[in-house]
Amino acid sequence: MTSTPDRLAPLVDPVRDLTDDEVARYARHLALPGLGPDGQRRLAAARVLVVGAGGLGSPALLYLAAAGVGTLGIVDDDVVDVTNLQRQVAHGQSDVGTSKVASARAAVGELNVHVDVVEHPVRLDQHNVLDVLRGYDVVLDGADNFPTRYLVSDAAEILGLPVVWGSIDRFDGQVSVFWGAPRYLGPDAGAQGPTVTGRGPTYRDVFPVPPPPGVVPDCATGGVLGAMCGTIGAAMATEAVKLVTGVGRTLHGRLAVYDALGPQWRELTVLPDPTRDPVTDLLPGDDAYATFCGLRAPATEAAPRITPTEAAALLAADPPALLLDVREEWEARARPVEGARVVPSGTFLGQAAGRPDDVARAALADLPAQRPVVVVCSAGVRSARVAEVARAAGVDARSVVGGLF
Amino acid sequence: MTSTPDRLAPLVDPVRDLTDDEVARYARHLALPGLGPDGQRRLAAARVLVVGAGGLGSPALLYLAAAGVGTLGIVDDDVVDVTNLQRQVAHGQSDVGTSKVASARAAVGELNVHVDVVEHPVRLDQHNVLDVLRGYDVVLDGADNFPTRYLVSDAAEILGLPVVWGSIDRFDGQVSVFWGAPRYLGPDAGAQGPTVTGRGPTYRDVFPVPPPPGVVPDCATGGVLGAMCGTIGAAMATEAVKLVTGVGRTLHGRLAVYDALGPQWRELTVLPDPTRDPVTDLLPGDDAYATFCGLRAPATEAAPRITPTEAAALLAADPPALLLDVREEWEARARPVEGARVVPSGTFLGQAAGRPDDVARAALADLPAQRPVVVVCSAGVRSARVAEVARAAGVDARSVVGGLF
Repeated sequence: MTSTPDRLAPLVDPVRDLTDDEVARYARHLALPGLGPDGQRRLAAARVLVVGAGGLGSPALLYLAAAGVGTLGIVDDDVVDVTNLQRQVAHGQSDVGTSKVASARAAVGELNVHVDVVEHPVRLDQHNVLDVLRGYDVVLDGADNFPTRYLVSDAAEILGLPVVWGSIDRFDGQVSVFWGAPRYLGPDAGAQGPTVTGRGPTYRDVFPVPPPPGVVPDCATGGVLGAMCGTIGAAMATEAVKLVTGVGRTLHGRLAVYDALGPQWRELTVLPDPTRDPVTDLLPGDDAYATFCGLRAPATEAAPRITPTEAAALLAADPPALLLDVREEWEARARPVEGARVVPSGTFLGQAAGRPDDVARAALADLPAQRPVVVVCSAGVRSARVAEVARAAGVDARSVVGGLF
Repeated sequence: MTSTPDRLAPLVDPVRDLTDDEVARYARHLALPGLGPDGQRRLAAARVLVVGAGGLGSPALLYLAAAGVGTLGIVDDDVVDVTNLQRQVAHGQSDVGTSKVASARAAVGELNVHVDVVEHPVRLDQHNVLDVLRGYDVVLDGADNFPTRYLVSDAAEILGLPVVWGSIDRFDGQVSVFWGAPRYLGPDAGAQGPTVTGRGPTYRDVFPVPPPPGVVPDCATGGVLGAMCGTIGAAMATEAVKLVTGVGRTLHGRLAVYDALGPQWRELTVLPDPTRDPVTDLLPGDDAYATFCGLRAPATEAAPRITPTEAAALLAADPPALLLDVREEWEARARPVEGARVVPSGTFLGQAAGRPDDVARAALADLPAQRPVVVVCSAGVRSARVAEVARAAGVDARSVVGGLF
């Protein structure tokens, strides 16, 4: 087995010369050994797409604009909300209620008049993703949800594009460069050297199945330390600049993991899964990516949802309902619910959560058949799924709407 | 020897309750285990000073504002220039020519109306630094020059304030938390637990003498990869949030080193220098910090400078010259010079390097009076300073031009 060279060829050719104004503006880049005028010309010719103009997209867009990326595409279908301003620094007070794409476009334009912005005020789906991504040199995935990540990964693999991916959750962040069709420089190759081919890891290789819904809260609902977004989002911009210019070594084949509490950075090696078939088509069907991520369960009898008041009445009845807390153990320790039996949701979901089905059957068998079960979690999503599974097993399970919050 | 506990007590008390608007805005922080409403109230009561509204100050200010720090001081005497926009993302095209402090204030205000901004449109010097820093809870040092770093470090040590320090150069960045008077939580202490005292490392402990002028270009003149500023500046904001709230473990006692080309993060342990006298006064004299950093050399008889060839001849003569390596111990370990006596330059410089004058006298007395001393360092600037001091003490000292490189 030969090791692949870890230097990638520059993604973009340096098309035109820099103007005098650009030479002045980018003086600090031009002074950089390895980047210089050649690298700056590659940046000026580059077309970079940023998916999500939120926590990660904000700093990524600001630094890509400052760096002089010639064309910046921005994908977001959301509008700026006041809760975004705790971390989404491309937006401001006066942008609340306007589209994130328009707000981000204004921020980019104010920073650098030399950047052409292409607005994509859409939610990516199977019908538009290939059209949106096609023609860009590199995609930054700062999406806040799993279906979009898999969708972007699949589309980029089909189109042969590299994806700089980042994610944040609470105090943790991750960054990598995924690319199913990398263009390597040979070990002895100069900038114009030979190209070596070989499949590289993609998001699907590293994360073959999505986590069960509710276990990893997306950052639209979970907590996130705002300042971390800057560290991760700017690191994504740095990787994009390196891909475009060929400077340095990218995170292709490595996953950087940041723990802001430590603080600590670790690095994991990631490889293509040799048993995985290359993606040549998107998943079929309108809800395929949401369904794959378990967010649109195939139609089943929905479990009854009850209010906290109704839950209290059931728990005070005779016989009292069983209170079942389906959060993870650590969540229950951090914020215990008095009198609850703690069984994490994944236990009941079996194979769908990447766990053995016989464990799920045993856990379901442990639930009482003769009295109601009140299922609770943080936000009411995991509890609803467990309640559905439990009802299918004959248990009178009810999920508390809105969870503990 | 007992190891010091690594958890610091929260810097700021949670003074007032959050308003409904704040609860909505900071929802993602309130959902964070360990931060929550208590931490957010500490942030609202915090007074944080950011020195330098440039490459590092821009993201630090944006994320501190977004995080809801109640009072943000901004120090900068510069105006926005078009060359800044390659990395200083708090400023924009329409701010060119206006003061950075005013421009940064506008960016902070647009992000969060709940932040009070205090403008300090000055260059810090011996006359104003204590007045500017006094009353803040923590200082972020994003200065782009060495005299300001030593000045801020000394003033913060005198006032007992922690300093979150960051620096960037080309593709490299560094972050640490310096604090001469840390308030530790005891090992078993809860949030309200006992306080343990003990001197912590400051900038002067880790960098006892400035690098020779010209060796490390400051970022006003050297190249810097713009996007790195976001990664380092946001990491500085993260450390400040952790200091204020007591969440997690800060970089106090550790120096994080970021290589954007690798990309790679490393961590070095840094300790207080037990031989260094605590700073109780600023260096006297108007140009003292510039002089200390070698930017304004005091008039003295210049020591003779010799070429490496001349040095070799002196070392081969009879009696042979003493070869004196005045780099720091860790530099000498990393790249040893055969046959050299290693005595770090700060030892000879006494009070000017924050060390006792009697140590300097003893070190000078240890140098031979009857044969030449060939002084060497990395680049020839530290060796020149030591050679001057040694000549003044009657030693025939000569500095090797250009040092080891």
